[in-house]
Amino acid sequence: MASIQFSKPAQSLQASVIVDLMNQALAQPDVLSLAAGFTDNSILPRSLVRQMSTALTQVGLPNEPLQYGQNQGRLGLRELSCRQLQQFPNESPQAFIAEQLFLSNGSQQALYLAMQTLCDPGSIVLVQDPTYFVFLELLQGLGIHAEAMPCDVCGQIDFEALTLRLQAMAETGQLACIRAVYLVSYYANPSSHSMDLAEKKQLARTLQSAGVQVPIIEDAAYRDLYFEQAHAAPSIFSLSEWAAFPKLYLGTYTKPFATGLKVGFAHCSSPEWLQKMLITKGHHDFGSAHFNQALVESMLLAGAYASHLQTARQQYAAKAARLSDTLEAGGLKELGWDWQAPEGGLILWLRAPANMDLRMQSPFCARCIEEGVLYVPGDLCFAHSTPWNCARLAFGALSIEALSEAAERFCRVAHTFAP
Amino acid sequence: MASIQFSKPAQSLQASVIVDLMNQALAQPDVLSLAAGFTDNSILPRSLVRQMSTALTQVGLPNEPLQYGQNQGRLGLRELSCRQLQQFPNESPQAFIAEQLFLSNGSQQALYLAMQTLCDPGSIVLVQDPTYFVFLELLQGLGIHAEAMPCDVCGQIDFEALTLRLQAMAETGQLACIRAVYLVSYYANPSSHSMDLAEKKQLARTLQSAGVQVPIIEDAAYRDLYFEQAHAAPSIFSLSEWAAFPKLYLGTYTKPFATGLKVGFAHCSSPEWLQKMLITKGHHDFGSAHFNQALVESMLLAGAYASHLQTARQQYAAKAARLSDTLEAGGLKELGWDWQAPEGGLILWLRAPANMDLRMQSPFCARCIEEGVLYVPGDLCFAHSTPWNCARLAFGALSIEALSEAAERFCRVAHTFAP
Repeated sequence: MASIQFSKPAQSLQASVIVDLMNQALAQPDVLSLAAGFTDNSILPRSLVRQMSTALTQVGLPNEPLQYGQNQGRLGLRELSCRQLQQFPNESPQAFIAEQLFLSNGSQQALYLAMQTLCDPGSIVLVQDPTYFVFLELLQGLGIHAEAMPCDVCGQIDFEALTLRLQAMAETGQLACIRAVYLVSYYANPSSHSMDLAEKKQLARTLQSAGVQVPIIEDAAYRDLYFEQAHAAPSIFSLSEWAAFPKLYLGTYTKPFATGLKVGFAHCSSPEWLQKMLITKGHHDFGSAHFNQALVESMLLAGAYASHLQTARQQYAAKAARLSDTLEAGGLKELGWDWQAPEGGLILWLRAPANMDLRMQSPFCARCIEEGVLYVPGDLCFAHSTPWNCARLAFGALSIEALSEAAERFCRVAHTFAP
Repeated sequence: MASIQFSKPAQSLQASVIVDLMNQALAQPDVLSLAAGFTDNSILPRSLVRQMSTALTQVGLPNEPLQYGQNQGRLGLRELSCRQLQQFPNESPQAFIAEQLFLSNGSQQALYLAMQTLCDPGSIVLVQDPTYFVFLELLQGLGIHAEAMPCDVCGQIDFEALTLRLQAMAETGQLACIRAVYLVSYYANPSSHSMDLAEKKQLARTLQSAGVQVPIIEDAAYRDLYFEQAHAAPSIFSLSEWAAFPKLYLGTYTKPFATGLKVGFAHCSSPEWLQKMLITKGHHDFGSAHFNQALVESMLLAGAYASHLQTARQQYAAKAARLSDTLEAGGLKELGWDWQAPEGGLILWLRAPANMDLRMQSPFCARCIEEGVLYVPGDLCFAHSTPWNCARLAFGALSIEALSEAAERFCRVAHTFAP
């Protein structure tokens, strides 16, 4: 067969590390995965989906759910999503408006559209250090460079170091290539850090002082999945420090409601940017599956989301606690490992002693696969691929019992590698 | 708010013409749209979807439908899709293999992924003349040039003219920029032409002679929607003339089953190309909504597709006939208009006398909107935006009665503009 001339970005595409990891795992039958960010099968909203599907397949409904919908998404769900967002603590009245919001195939698609409309190959996007590793892969696929905003070990931005880095970028001319800033601001994947009010405000001031008034993308995928109470800091849409910045807020029903439905959304402060993302979305798919939007909309209308979330929060809180407790009981802290107990989300972020190597190709990682436990090597979450001593553990999918077992396996390996 | 620096492709994005047309229509309450390619609400598979949703929301199913699925899509549906394709007339045994097929958000997403992986800004894609106008918009959004393969008025390729054009492109150096050929081969949108065996074979020979051995994309979105019998020509995957070409076949359950579910697929002859499209799809969305895939899979498994299609075919055949008959009864042929009666699909392609102007900004189009009938101006379907005397009429959405009324309105306008 004739050889194919691929596009420039496609020539250097690399397969996702998660795919490699999964393939390795498949060779090993009883492996327990703390790697993939799946959610808990036991709390998927089966009866809600059944009930809503039955209602939505009646004859003669307005805005027929099994027909195409609008490219921007169902107005009803866009309005209800804004109402949901307004209920979070400390949001300004009217921070979220249905006209500025569009529905997407999970929030991931909206993130992709944001990058397509803002960045060319060679553009720079500022990210937290660590950041969501799939976003780093997405950037690489588009030929966009990620530049780290220095953070402390807990994932909080180090503003002195950031200022110095921005100054250095100004000197090399790189500053002008920054097209966007990407923040994971609630129970971040992977650090599980939430940005508080002071950090959010300080970031706006630091960027503005440096002359970096580019679009800000706030990825709040896990915001609904708090354990005890909603994080107090409002979104960047409600903070006057961010008023002059173009803003995009990403939310989703995928993680908190049903991963199999893939309904996410994005709220944009700039009509021009929104329009460009919508046109590009039209080229991708003319709008996400309308039936799925209608399912989520009718679930919200029925007032069923709060109690679903209550169940989910309890479950994930219990899982986070079990994972953390088992790692602690396994003596990991005595070996010099450290972590913050998550307050929400689906991720626990582990830091081994500084000299340890947990990368994919490391003896430690190989030993974990042999022992039957998978994790995401933390270096993959850093824009500059260092440090090497971190691990992302996802606790969404495994049962409580399996989490104990996985953590025990992990601790056994850690003891083997103790100095 | 700070101004945004957009990516180069985003700077020149243009809104879809259909959006403009719809906005004009909204100002006019009783408008009947022959423009949008919606399907028939009355035959949407409501009870099938209800039944399958009930079955798929039981506890403990393997490959849990409400959880994330694989990026490539459910193996079961990929296998069943191959089996469906093998049932078309004259396909080679084993022409379609599940490993080479992936599921997408409608076939549109697969088309987008194909273009992203094959083309850079400035690349050229050969298209039929006319071709699917949303594809032309998609290309424009990516900075890719569409070059027309000359066709006769019925949409059949004129091979003498094509050979001359390819020679001319060789002389200007453009030939080397051709990265793909895009074919709509069954009941084409908009020409309603189906490529027969001779045309398919001749195209392969003509391209090969000209040294254009680039990837071929066969878009078969309407193939299931034949009226009397399946079109006899097999896909390019079953023709030895195409053996040396990299090939992609696009199919969908969106149009023939449920537009609200958005399940499409693509079958690729090149493992390397497939891999690059899958990686890029992972960046878009990590896989299409798993629940929707499971719905379509279980509907196929239950053997329910054939009888659904039978209903759909009867309905669309009746609609095509009513539209064609009403236009004829309205005296359009006497005025010098012409068209082929469709043998499948959802589109009737009208040709006015050569000197007429039916473009969006034409008095004819304005008069149609006033009269309360919308169509897609045909110039939008031509890579070079000429001729101006064609109109795409979609008959999927309107009821039989509304189709009569829309056709009568259209004929009234045509009489007004008669010489």
